[in-house]
Amino acid sequence: MTIPAPYLLYLGHSDDEIGLKTSRGLAAFRQHDCVGEWRHDDCPFTLGLPRMDAAAGYAAGARTLVLGIANPGGRFPDWLIGDALTAIRAGLNLACGLHQRLCDVPELVAAAAAAGVSLFDVRDAPETLPVGNGRRRPGNRLLTVGTDCSVGKMYATLCLRDALRARGIAADFRATGQTGILIAGEGVPLDAVIADFIAGAIETLAPARDDDGWDLIEGQGSLFHPAFAGVSTGLLHGAQPTALVLCHDPLRPHMRGLPHYSMPGLAECLEANLRVAKLTSPDVRAVGIALNTAKLDEASARRLCAETADALGLPCTDPYRFGAEPIIDLLLEPACAASSPFATTASR
Amino acid sequence: MTIPAPYLLYLGHSDDEIGLKTSRGLAAFRQHDCVGEWRHDDCPFTLGLPRMDAAAGYAAGARTLVLGIANPGGRFPDWLIGDALTAIRAGLNLACGLHQRLCDVPELVAAAAAAGVSLFDVRDAPETLPVGNGRRRPGNRLLTVGTDCSVGKMYATLCLRDALRARGIAADFRATGQTGILIAGEGVPLDAVIADFIAGAIETLAPARDDDGWDLIEGQGSLFHPAFAGVSTGLLHGAQPTALVLCHDPLRPHMRGLPHYSMPGLAECLEANLRVAKLTSPDVRAVGIALNTAKLDEASARRLCAETADALGLPCTDPYRFGAEPIIDLLLEPACAASSPFATTASR
Repeated sequence: MTIPAPYLLYLGHSDDEIGLKTSRGLAAFRQHDCVGEWRHDDCPFTLGLPRMDAAAGYAAGARTLVLGIANPGGRFPDWLIGDALTAIRAGLNLACGLHQRLCDVPELVAAAAAAGVSLFDVRDAPETLPVGNGRRRPGNRLLTVGTDCSVGKMYATLCLRDALRARGIAADFRATGQTGILIAGEGVPLDAVIADFIAGAIETLAPARDDDGWDLIEGQGSLFHPAFAGVSTGLLHGAQPTALVLCHDPLRPHMRGLPHYSMPGLAECLEANLRVAKLTSPDVRAVGIALNTAKLDEASARRLCAETADALGLPCTDPYRFGAEPIIDLLLEPACAASSPFATTASR
Repeated sequence: MTIPAPYLLYLGHSDDEIGLKTSRGLAAFRQHDCVGEWRHDDCPFTLGLPRMDAAAGYAAGARTLVLGIANPGGRFPDWLIGDALTAIRAGLNLACGLHQRLCDVPELVAAAAAAGVSLFDVRDAPETLPVGNGRRRPGNRLLTVGTDCSVGKMYATLCLRDALRARGIAADFRATGQTGILIAGEGVPLDAVIADFIAGAIETLAPARDDDGWDLIEGQGSLFHPAFAGVSTGLLHGAQPTALVLCHDPLRPHMRGLPHYSMPGLAECLEANLRVAKLTSPDVRAVGIALNTAKLDEASARRLCAETADALGLPCTDPYRFGAEPIIDLLLEPACAASSPFATTASR
């Protein structure tokens, strides 16, 4: 599956800002491939892109309309189908990350066939996946892990990729969630994979590489989330990471959706992730902490990063706000030179 | 899904003894519900049941023909469909634990509709499962965990159930694999559940109970298996076990299918399982070790159980061969009275 760019981002009649996170992620990390946004007069949000409808988007070069709206339940809003048909008839492919599938709407399937365009249901898992084999494979791989769900793992992973590329180092983003897949144009929607194939899916997603480049693998969930730790465990094992970066939202009051579960400490969380990762990657080390400081003022954010770095002996930054440089510095340093107990490869 | 008993067990033309493990499990744990075995002249195996065909099975009281044959790939052998049609026409329901689905064979679907019988594809996951919530729920729950896959977790779980019942204590087996589901008549095929729902599926399978009885939950995989540890992790979190029993095959040379992965030590494996389980069940404790000693002579088996019990300070038995009594004794003892470091609920 490779979704043709450039993209027109569909906001429609959306009145829920959080529901726009997929479109917002594309606007942030694929900005040169986003020709515009299509929103109706009652949509109070903008991604800062030129406003245009399907026909204007096609004329401006767009090849895929991204239905980048998420909502509880993952069903299509009523008003979406009509606009989707308009887009198909304008010559645009459609891509969607909701649970409900474009390919299950006969009207869309027929229209797409007639127009010669494709429907991409990003949450569809590949039909054939292997079970994991845990065989050591060559290559540099970094995995982002988190204290919780939705703490900034995808943003951190993409910022790390961009920082490596800025230094002239080959770096590929390996997407595991629907927003990441739309940004990368490919990937595995891990939340739709059958349980037995989690690790195998990631072995396939980030195969052996023999250059000096890096695979940057998007993490999911948290070892400390009682619903999703299984996914995080399989992801750690399949990734065989050389390096881990721990992502955290310092203002999160408790585990997402679970007021009865407190957040883990950063050191405890790092230790648990390194311990699990060592099963398939004995030399794994931590190379940094990524904080999501979007809701802190700059002085507080910088102070918190400095304090966290001191406490753990690892570089700490908000990679989207302040850059990923401190983490990249340690990542590219030989393992033996590191001073933090989390960043050495000695057996723990 | 409740599969009507009694059962006729189908061996057909099978020439692979390992492939009969589902039928063998039923003959061992549902023996009063197994009226006979249906095998052709070229099948060299027997389960020790009266031999009869579909019509004779129905006449003997059978209501379901269990296609209890497993093979690599999980596809139907050529010769199975004809016999399945014969069984349907004889009035039998069909149950199957292979990956290939009875309901995907139009000929069988049509014949079953005409005969008024049902087709049970045991590996179908429930269509709607919740994500886990980790909320503490009342009830006594025991989960079997393993050093590896296929080390005897299902047999141990069933033996523990039977031993509790023999003492007059209410005890229910909660099945998580296809053989277990056929034995229990219900359950969740965890290897077919979508990754995000592993823990939620188990919360549903073993809900709160307010009697003094026990849920005995069948474990899957191993925290030390690089392909399946994610499943084992989600199972530990969803189960919220009060008690763990560690299952092990002392003759297993390396992790199943992976000569490049050595088996974990029993103490290391117990510690890892207790650590993961504590996220949702802080008071969890280990109550015993179950060894599969089928390939050892009796003196060696008893010696190994005694040595293992000494080494870990926990009761150790082969529950299928020597009974589960030592484990049940500790299970029913108050947590504070236990002497092993694995069997106390003090924080580790």
